[in-house]
Amino acid sequence: MQPNDTQAAEECESEGRATSMNVLWIMADQLRWDYLGCYGARHIETPNLDWLAGRGVRFNRAYVQSPICGPSRMSYYTGRYVRSHGSTWNGFPLRVGEPTLGDHLREVGVKCALVGKTHMTPDREGMKRLGIEPESAIGALVAECGFDAFVRDDGTNHSDYPGRHAEDYELYLREQGMEGENLWEEWANTAEGPNGELRSGWLLQNAPYAARVPKEHSETAWLTTRGIEFIEAHGDRRWLCHLSYIKPHWPYLAPSPYNGMYSASDLPPVNRSEAERLSDHPLMRAWMGMRVSKSFSRDEVRSLVAPVYMGLIRELDDQLGRLFAFLEDSGRLEDTMIVFCSDHGDNMGDHWMGEKDLFFDCSVRVPLIVYTPRAEADSTRGSSTDALVEGIDLAPTFIEYFGGPSKPHILEGRSLAPLLRGQETEWRTFCVSEYDYSTRDARREIGIDQTDARLAMIFDGRWKYIHVEKMRPMLFDLESDPRELNDLGANPDFREQADRLKALHFDWSRRHHSRITRSAEDIEKMTDDREPPGILIGYRDRGELEADGLALPSHADK
Amino acid sequence: MQPNDTQAAEECESEGRATSMNVLWIMADQLRWDYLGCYGARHIETPNLDWLAGRGVRFNRAYVQSPICGPSRMSYYTGRYVRSHGSTWNGFPLRVGEPTLGDHLREVGVKCALVGKTHMTPDREGMKRLGIEPESAIGALVAECGFDAFVRDDGTNHSDYPGRHAEDYELYLREQGMEGENLWEEWANTAEGPNGELRSGWLLQNAPYAARVPKEHSETAWLTTRGIEFIEAHGDRRWLCHLSYIKPHWPYLAPSPYNGMYSASDLPPVNRSEAERLSDHPLMRAWMGMRVSKSFSRDEVRSLVAPVYMGLIRELDDQLGRLFAFLEDSGRLEDTMIVFCSDHGDNMGDHWMGEKDLFFDCSVRVPLIVYTPRAEADSTRGSSTDALVEGIDLAPTFIEYFGGPSKPHILEGRSLAPLLRGQETEWRTFCVSEYDYSTRDARREIGIDQTDARLAMIFDGRWKYIHVEKMRPMLFDLESDPRELNDLGANPDFREQADRLKALHFDWSRRHHSRITRSAEDIEKMTDDREPPGILIGYRDRGELEADGLALPSHADK
Repeated sequence: MQPNDTQAAEECESEGRATSMNVLWIMADQLRWDYLGCYGARHIETPNLDWLAGRGVRFNRAYVQSPICGPSRMSYYTGRYVRSHGSTWNGFPLRVGEPTLGDHLREVGVKCALVGKTHMTPDREGMKRLGIEPESAIGALVAECGFDAFVRDDGTNHSDYPGRHAEDYELYLREQGMEGENLWEEWANTAEGPNGELRSGWLLQNAPYAARVPKEHSETAWLTTRGIEFIEAHGDRRWLCHLSYIKPHWPYLAPSPYNGMYSASDLPPVNRSEAERLSDHPLMRAWMGMRVSKSFSRDEVRSLVAPVYMGLIRELDDQLGRLFAFLEDSGRLEDTMIVFCSDHGDNMGDHWMGEKDLFFDCSVRVPLIVYTPRAEADSTRGSSTDALVEGIDLAPTFIEYFGGPSKPHILEGRSLAPLLRGQETEWRTFCVSEYDYSTRDARREIGIDQTDARLAMIFDGRWKYIHVEKMRPMLFDLESDPRELNDLGANPDFREQADRLKALHFDWSRRHHSRITRSAEDIEKMTDDREPPGILIGYRDRGELEADGLALPSHADK
Repeated sequence: MQPNDTQAAEECESEGRATSMNVLWIMADQLRWDYLGCYGARHIETPNLDWLAGRGVRFNRAYVQSPICGPSRMSYYTGRYVRSHGSTWNGFPLRVGEPTLGDHLREVGVKCALVGKTHMTPDREGMKRLGIEPESAIGALVAECGFDAFVRDDGTNHSDYPGRHAEDYELYLREQGMEGENLWEEWANTAEGPNGELRSGWLLQNAPYAARVPKEHSETAWLTTRGIEFIEAHGDRRWLCHLSYIKPHWPYLAPSPYNGMYSASDLPPVNRSEAERLSDHPLMRAWMGMRVSKSFSRDEVRSLVAPVYMGLIRELDDQLGRLFAFLEDSGRLEDTMIVFCSDHGDNMGDHWMGEKDLFFDCSVRVPLIVYTPRAEADSTRGSSTDALVEGIDLAPTFIEYFGGPSKPHILEGRSLAPLLRGQETEWRTFCVSEYDYSTRDARREIGIDQTDARLAMIFDGRWKYIHVEKMRPMLFDLESDPRELNDLGANPDFREQADRLKALHFDWSRRHHSRITRSAEDIEKMTDDREPPGILIGYRDRGELEADGLALPSHADK
């Protein structure tokens, strides 16, 4: 901790409990916005999230900066677009020196802790270049994307993360009496079939079977407990706790009773069209042709998997109920901002696709609920807004909540504070999401070089424009076609709209995003000063100099 | 030094003198391309640079990435565009973690040393965030833009640089018996008038007087000597020495006899037109209206200053003669690549402007001469090329010369090696330069916000297109208008050209530039692997899995 952090922290401490403020930032993984009751879902119940929405603001148009875990999260954690932080795909390290939410919060004396998943891959090469030991205090922060890792767990047991706490869940399961070589794989990701046979969570056909792990010890329950432990341990100090769940991300396996809570008959109809299936767009064709897309396009598979996906959401909601009850009982609801969001959705067979690729709303639009205890938000409780918000808006929101500086030269998002207060405010007119498919096999099929495997979405609240390098764009009118079934990108009647959105994309592309070492205030001051002291440019003689109120730095010409 | 660097260095050492290779990279500051004999100048003699050009390749179309010292140099030193490294103006720190030429060379065991100027401002905030002590070995490298500073000297005595060697020139002058409080200011930047009175180098009217410092002890002579000392001390080890002169940059004051070597009658005619003066472009009007531009637009001022500017160039050329003789005598011409370039030019009254702002050829086009001792370049000695090269091409050229990896995911320039060998090669079709005028007072006059104070030049070898945020573009046809006097940006007849170049600007803006932690090889391998080991997505059953040659990681479903 830097000296000024200690000072800031002490100042806060001395103000005592009355002004202490915390943030509990809950993230689900791969959770669709339209699978929550408060977002209008009628096929699933999420009473606890609905309760939260009733006390806070529900954002109807929250978009993530990439439909993929890693880049989306790096945007959340830096408050910067993917093109800016450069971690464009899972496992692409976040470059050393990229400022994180944790860095900004530590400056104002706030602990920024992690309980769960980040999908961060450390930039070991960069750290080595700068002589930063991964074992040092700063090295650990750099490796953990700026978070103090109370618990780090990325879900499956195969990720290459620094792992200070990576084995926590393994150890926990062992303490509960479970045995095996890889406890996550053998208990959380293995089900017991009707005849006691073991069935792997990696196979979609096994989705309906109950995970071997009982619900009390699932990843979702365990992370909830760890989150509560963190809060109990840090009570009156100012903290942000990023409670980052792994579910309802695949593998699609739920503990009893969640595995059997829903059935195929509960599912909403799949959202796809024959016209889509016949699309002439090479990218659509390639993505619909992926194995995972073909799997999820089979009704039989979706009927097996989606009910379990819903069960996992229900399980999450139940655990959040336990968490919210704890907050209420401990008085923390009075001083804790609670934010709930997701890193992206799940296509789940919609648009003939599996996984979360591309930019359909089922993937790139996420649930976002923000509750703040402050009285200034009383007028917006239980309301919703259609403002176009982005994942990168959370970091500036938190920093402002803790009284930190806004740093727009680094943070590209905008604080949601005015929206939470219900203030009239000039808001952004479009949002952006990006997708780098350079490591996707389909890239080779289409014949695209790895440097050109780039997509960008521009969405202005009605028109969704997808820039596709080397191919024609895609275009959807969400007003006339809210289900996004009709790609207008090749339709000359909509050329004008496409051109307008393309121009917005260009505008956005030109913006500064690497000029992060000089603040707006610095720049205004430099403009006032004109030149550094002692530097005099273009003066013919002393008269000209004096007319500008300047003097020579030496004894010459005096 | 990292362990692998030591190893690489030792391997090189063991290969001995026969394969040892060095690079002497000479940079002048604010030197116009058209003030050198080998570039066709008839008003000035530069026999030593002409001699170098006779042994190497002269680049006719070398463009810097910004017409301003700091950003141009940061591009040279990182091999990356200004929008990528983010140090867009003098004094805007290069963000910590931005990989430099020095970092890349150290990886292959090559010492990368500095003798002279870099205009680097360290990112102290970023260093603090990462716990990098400025006094540590790595801290010093980070603060010196990746260079081992043998001598660091930025010219005037007012720069805020870390200064391990900043006082070298002061100390040197004192050792020579000069006295005063600020020896640079009082001797190098002060002249003696006809009556023995002291005259400041900051006043343009004093340009014709001889600097008080004798030519043997001028900054140019002193840096030359320090360069020779470096080479003598590092003889047979592999090194790159960046000998980076401060002159002919202002203050325009030369020691005798260079102050009086040229007169107004030697000057080439000023390059400007009445049509330019009447330009309706707000940017042109604001820049022509700057005090420094008004000064240099007075014939009287240009007649005083430009001959001294020429004298400073002649002095530099004389000192290079001494340096080249040393290299020849010491045998270093046999194993040393010699590169000569400039960081930008000087408008010197052309286009009604002073200083180096905007993108006219007198500013953004620079001299570039490359001599390599290797036999493979024998066929190109004394030749020139019109290939569109950029300042960022030097870093990759040096890395390739020393046998290092090309790293196109970090380095945006291209090695000049094929051009030096005279090989047919597919080369870039346009080059780019950028200018951030956010700290310029003129920005306020025009009424432009600091985030919009951005210009970009796209030059394809004939058409030069200047994107101006919030204003119309400028456009010049260098075929019909090589003097760039006729801005076609408002002429509807050239709309098609402007649109074509605008599209190139957009293409360039969309390219990856922050995705620096994954190499092309990494990405191809990830594409081959499809998913990390143990991760299985979208398989319905074991049959599908086995059809893909995969197996489950657990004992389930066996």
